[in-house]
Amino acid sequence: MDSIEEDFLKLDRKTAEERFSRMSTDEQAEVFRKIPLWDRRAWIRILPPDDAADLLQKLTEEERQETMSVLDAQTKIELSALLAYREDQAGGLMNSRFARLRPDMTVEEAIRYLRAQTRAQVETIYYAYVLDQNQTLLGVVSLRSLFMAASQALISSLMIKGEALTKIGENRDQEELARLFAQGGHLALPVVDSSGKMKGIVTVDDVVQVVHQEATEDIQKFGGMEALDAPYFKIDFLNMIKKRAGWLMILFLGEMFTATAMGYYEDEISKAVVLALFIPLIISSGGNSGSQASTLVIRALALGEIKLRDWWKVLFRELATGLTLGAILGLIGLARIFFWPARNSMYGPHYGLVALSVGLSLVGIVMWGTLAGSMLPFLLRKLGFDPAAASAPFVATLVDVTGLIIYFTVASLILGGIVL
Amino acid sequence: MDSIEEDFLKLDRKTAEERFSRMSTDEQAEVFRKIPLWDRRAWIRILPPDDAADLLQKLTEEERQETMSVLDAQTKIELSALLAYREDQAGGLMNSRFARLRPDMTVEEAIRYLRAQTRAQVETIYYAYVLDQNQTLLGVVSLRSLFMAASQALISSLMIKGEALTKIGENRDQEELARLFAQGGHLALPVVDSSGKMKGIVTVDDVVQVVHQEATEDIQKFGGMEALDAPYFKIDFLNMIKKRAGWLMILFLGEMFTATAMGYYEDEISKAVVLALFIPLIISSGGNSGSQASTLVIRALALGEIKLRDWWKVLFRELATGLTLGAILGLIGLARIFFWPARNSMYGPHYGLVALSVGLSLVGIVMWGTLAGSMLPFLLRKLGFDPAAASAPFVATLVDVTGLIIYFTVASLILGGIVL
Repeated sequence: MDSIEEDFLKLDRKTAEERFSRMSTDEQAEVFRKIPLWDRRAWIRILPPDDAADLLQKLTEEERQETMSVLDAQTKIELSALLAYREDQAGGLMNSRFARLRPDMTVEEAIRYLRAQTRAQVETIYYAYVLDQNQTLLGVVSLRSLFMAASQALISSLMIKGEALTKIGENRDQEELARLFAQGGHLALPVVDSSGKMKGIVTVDDVVQVVHQEATEDIQKFGGMEALDAPYFKIDFLNMIKKRAGWLMILFLGEMFTATAMGYYEDEISKAVVLALFIPLIISSGGNSGSQASTLVIRALALGEIKLRDWWKVLFRELATGLTLGAILGLIGLARIFFWPARNSMYGPHYGLVALSVGLSLVGIVMWGTLAGSMLPFLLRKLGFDPAAASAPFVATLVDVTGLIIYFTVASLILGGIVL
Repeated sequence: MDSIEEDFLKLDRKTAEERFSRMSTDEQAEVFRKIPLWDRRAWIRILPPDDAADLLQKLTEEERQETMSVLDAQTKIELSALLAYREDQAGGLMNSRFARLRPDMTVEEAIRYLRAQTRAQVETIYYAYVLDQNQTLLGVVSLRSLFMAASQALISSLMIKGEALTKIGENRDQEELARLFAQGGHLALPVVDSSGKMKGIVTVDDVVQVVHQEATEDIQKFGGMEALDAPYFKIDFLNMIKKRAGWLMILFLGEMFTATAMGYYEDEISKAVVLALFIPLIISSGGNSGSQASTLVIRALALGEIKLRDWWKVLFRELATGLTLGAILGLIGLARIFFWPARNSMYGPHYGLVALSVGLSLVGIVMWGTLAGSMLPFLLRKLGFDPAAASAPFVATLVDVTGLIIYFTVASLILGGIVL
């Protein structure tokens, strides 16, 4: 990794600046640390303010203070305002340099005015925002609609306003933002504060990165670990262990209840060791069906396909799905034992009853797994947690303990008095 | 669902058209089926060609033929060309209506020419593509750079060309496309055929949808099921069962080997039932650590953070990680048995040796799970499969069978001659 930074310092200035502006924020932070303090102001100015703020957020508190101290007053004010937002809020993604128009301008004046603003480093001129004297957002016009309109038409008659104008509150979460962009096909959206004052714009290219990043975080949580904040090879060994050991330990402690539960059935197992043979098969089926259901519901919640209030519709649907899937696996399991060539020597004279116990348990466990997996994300969201925490391993662990109880209860009912 | 379509048919034309153009392709297809054949041409013309082609791809072969038969010749040719691409290729996402310029135009001519093209339904005027007489792509200019340039400057002197010009081959996969957009911050990219002829443009708003969709597919595969092709509530019950039962059955059949493996150790279990108590705990730890590792590697491969040739770097890293994580869980497991208050009555007089067996097995199994989970995605990609198939449940199943073998082998070595 060090070699990248050293190579960077050997580039000519122009190439270096160009490469710098194309780097990810993490890479920018790495090379930025190597740049002498007296040169940092120039490098911060290469970046649009939202990217500069992201970069500053990657630095330590001390490095940030140092860097801020060498910036010019204007940039300092701009960046301080952006740093007040969390990185994953609309305000943290936005750029405060947008193109402005007044409602009483004509199209001709507006185009001339936009040409002038082009030189002032606004993030996009393709949308211009119409503000009153108090900076309240009145409407938006696209450059395209300006091109199509008559030269003397008034901006106020041309702009999209009222209901049709999509605005984003400055504290909205970036996940919601990504959804808005995906649905509406917008290139940029305006960010406003609670009084309707325009604060900046978020552009779609920033959102593509957000969508990627959100999906990565969700996927890593599904895998039963904390979301990583950097690419695989950029995370040092100790940090990697920390991100993974935490959840593994929680899952392990949870799974210890299986040993406790099985302790209660030690007698049954010693009387009919054959029962032990099917434990992994049975509990894993519960875990797998639960993992399917939770994945499905988590993603549908994240995309807004399912709302919190839909939980009972999902409940009924997953109940029916779980019953069907359970019946399928139960039948396979029953057949596997009942028709196995060596069934007598392997499963004893009562192999038929063993087969029945396994089959019926599978129906119950798959149904339970499906139900638990589909309801857990709702419960987590309701309690204010991230539904994505209902990962495949988490659901599997939860279902393992209850699965054992279902299995041994069914087996006691069927084999009680005969084998047990 | 039916009621949405019926409501739609009762809207006034203008509202209906506006709503139609904002629907997802699936919804569009649903309402489109209800529109009389003689009216369909008008509805197809509302959509940009790429969206119209997507809609046609959702219809059955017969419905598509019917619809094509009522379109005008120009639209038919345009759509047939787009339908030749798979939906997930660059060609399938692109729009063939883009703004064109000639290299020998002046800036003033170009702006006037673009204003004229605005009325001709091009997808964007914010980038204009410079073509020669053979439609070969020479370069691209942004409207923004036109605005900033002198009126008499030549387009050929202004355009981005050569190395700096990002082009997409028409058969490039949409996942690669999404990566290009996420890295470069482009609003639109040109699609060319193998001879360099310009075929169309892909815009970033289409790509946001793609990124969402790709992530959803990956996430569903991680959960151990086939990717769904529609939102949760839009899939009918039978289809949902089909998407989920397939993988569940495969996993179930794989997991059956655990019953076979445990059959070999039936004697050991009957001699020391205490060993059975820890089976779920031990095999689930292997599954969980494997699921973490596979999730991490699959996502890193999908984002291009890791290349196929990096497998050995990942191998070494995961070997060390697995050993560390295994040691942590092994120590907890050992302590749990060794210091448990009721250890004598619960685990027998040789509880110390039992604790040692469990602890050492955990080290081995977590290491093995981590290794298998991290290498399986590489293997799948190398063999030409989708690495995302190495889902949490799949890895867990794989590791369960081998985990049992590790556990009983370790236990036999430690407890052999004493308990066994």
